[in-house]
Amino acid sequence: MIKTRGYAAHSGDQPLQPFQFERRALGAGDVQIDILYCGVCHSDLHTARNDWGNTLFPSVPGHEIVGRVAAVGDQVDGFKVGDMVGVGCMVDSCQHCPSCAEGLEQFCDNGFTSTYNGSSLGGAENTYGGYSDTIVVRQEFVLHIRHTDNLAAVAPLLCAGITTYSPLRHWSVGPGQKVGVVGLGGLGHMGVKLARAMGAHVVLITTSPNKRDDALRLGAHEVIISTDAKQMLGAMNSLDFILNTVAAPHDLNALLSLLKRDGTMTLVGAPAEPHPSPEVFRLIFKRRKLAGSLIGGIAETQEMLDFCAEHNIVSDIEMIPIQDINEAYERMLKGDVRYRFVIDMGSLDSN
Amino acid sequence: MIKTRGYAAHSGDQPLQPFQFERRALGAGDVQIDILYCGVCHSDLHTARNDWGNTLFPSVPGHEIVGRVAAVGDQVDGFKVGDMVGVGCMVDSCQHCPSCAEGLEQFCDNGFTSTYNGSSLGGAENTYGGYSDTIVVRQEFVLHIRHTDNLAAVAPLLCAGITTYSPLRHWSVGPGQKVGVVGLGGLGHMGVKLARAMGAHVVLITTSPNKRDDALRLGAHEVIISTDAKQMLGAMNSLDFILNTVAAPHDLNALLSLLKRDGTMTLVGAPAEPHPSPEVFRLIFKRRKLAGSLIGGIAETQEMLDFCAEHNIVSDIEMIPIQDINEAYERMLKGDVRYRFVIDMGSLDSN
Repeated sequence: MIKTRGYAAHSGDQPLQPFQFERRALGAGDVQIDILYCGVCHSDLHTARNDWGNTLFPSVPGHEIVGRVAAVGDQVDGFKVGDMVGVGCMVDSCQHCPSCAEGLEQFCDNGFTSTYNGSSLGGAENTYGGYSDTIVVRQEFVLHIRHTDNLAAVAPLLCAGITTYSPLRHWSVGPGQKVGVVGLGGLGHMGVKLARAMGAHVVLITTSPNKRDDALRLGAHEVIISTDAKQMLGAMNSLDFILNTVAAPHDLNALLSLLKRDGTMTLVGAPAEPHPSPEVFRLIFKRRKLAGSLIGGIAETQEMLDFCAEHNIVSDIEMIPIQDINEAYERMLKGDVRYRFVIDMGSLDSN
Repeated sequence: MIKTRGYAAHSGDQPLQPFQFERRALGAGDVQIDILYCGVCHSDLHTARNDWGNTLFPSVPGHEIVGRVAAVGDQVDGFKVGDMVGVGCMVDSCQHCPSCAEGLEQFCDNGFTSTYNGSSLGGAENTYGGYSDTIVVRQEFVLHIRHTDNLAAVAPLLCAGITTYSPLRHWSVGPGQKVGVVGLGGLGHMGVKLARAMGAHVVLITTSPNKRDDALRLGAHEVIISTDAKQMLGAMNSLDFILNTVAAPHDLNALLSLLKRDGTMTLVGAPAEPHPSPEVFRLIFKRRKLAGSLIGGIAETQEMLDFCAEHNIVSDIEMIPIQDINEAYERMLKGDVRYRFVIDMGSLDSN
């Protein structure tokens, strides 16, 4: 067993605090990783506070992990000690169902194992995530990181990056297309960067006029303020695809109307309460589609990391010591982060 | 001008009654048709009763028209006197926008002209539909009918047929696929026949156990009673595509759950009140899609008619004289028709 230091929530109404636990001993197919950085996702906060009612406590969140390989098992052939690697939202899946066979482990018919708050396959134990100094992961779920600097800003690619990259690829976003990205947060700012790098004309759609400059700096060609009826009317039937990153319930009708015939709006945020019901005629009269997408498979995550390394894409981040995690959660709830907190795991030494 | 006899509603709260009016004189590109049969669509009823608040009175409904060519204009080359022809939901469109250029006149950027209750392009006049003995239509919107008998039962193909054929084709339904059809009414019973003829495994989904035998007779391989939670659970993640023909507001979540990963449910009925809002996670966790579809283009309508002629597909109908139209509407509201009323237009002579 491997002694590990981290931060955990012990109940939904208590702040995260230092927590010591043990990781499994290195198996033949495992990679042991010294964690350098971990991004802070909204799911971390919801899990720590048991907002979804399914949290196993103690809970160690974190699924945007960047670190260095510390040891490898006897049968590991793709990684060696010292390699820079990443771990995202999944640490295991059945590896034999049709979805796994197609490299879509996120849709594993038997349920993938979440990096945190997920029972290990065949076992009842809880998984502990990246708010810690060490993690042991089977090699199939470890990603190579080819970025050579700014590694802290690579961490959010493991969730926010792949969650936006996968639908952009699945719906074949590219040159000659006008693509809308709704919301400029952790996911949205990655959506803008990625869609731009894929060659699309990018339109950021936001309720916040004060995000206009940032959106243009991040790569958007245009910004539409969705509370401005005139701007929305002017953009009707103009977009080939919309990536909707907003998790709060909101009016989907006005956004659907921005799609051209045969366009798709894909939701990657799941609201706690349903959105107001979209009008059916918005779908029927232009044969539009409303879809959903969930992170991405491991092969596609590697493809995304390589794409980002090639195009010099990282997340815009604010680095924090882990001692500030509870305050960071409060700021996230107010939307006060541009655009992702990343924990410097070296800060654990200060405890 | 061409003197025409028909039936019209003069206001939303009065029954349809005999009505005489004039059709435009035959233009160089027009086809004049002696109407033999006209199917009775739910849209007819909603328009006659001004349920959608947009009815121009007097209103002559009917857009499932089968008749014989009585005269053709000088520039008509595709039709000759005596030909058996059909007219569906559209009688004109701009013919030059991208959608028209692609043969998708139903999505004409300038708005197609409806067969009834539609302003003629460039004019303010109302269009009068198929509850009449004669119609004049530009040749681009006239269809060839290659069925040799049972012509009354061909009429509903012009709306109910194409409305179900188009999405089945657009989403590439065929052999090796399991396809759900929700609802066994005028649209649903066509959906079952067409999906079966396309080679799919067809699953009819209905709230009515007493429709089971009919569904199997019409071509369904299986029937699921959607109020039976056990049957629904057993069919989870099993369908490649769902054609949802139900216009009344209903729970989409249970139906979405029947779709496999990457499956699509397409709505062809537009409810007066929205459906309960579908849960986003039903879309996200299997990358499912919710879509809409509207009738079909003219070229596709001809393709559908030829497909039906080849496969001996017609609608299951109950023939009525036009004098019974108001009673037929009442029966439709109770779901008391298997599965489409068709007016024998020869009955106009009895007035």
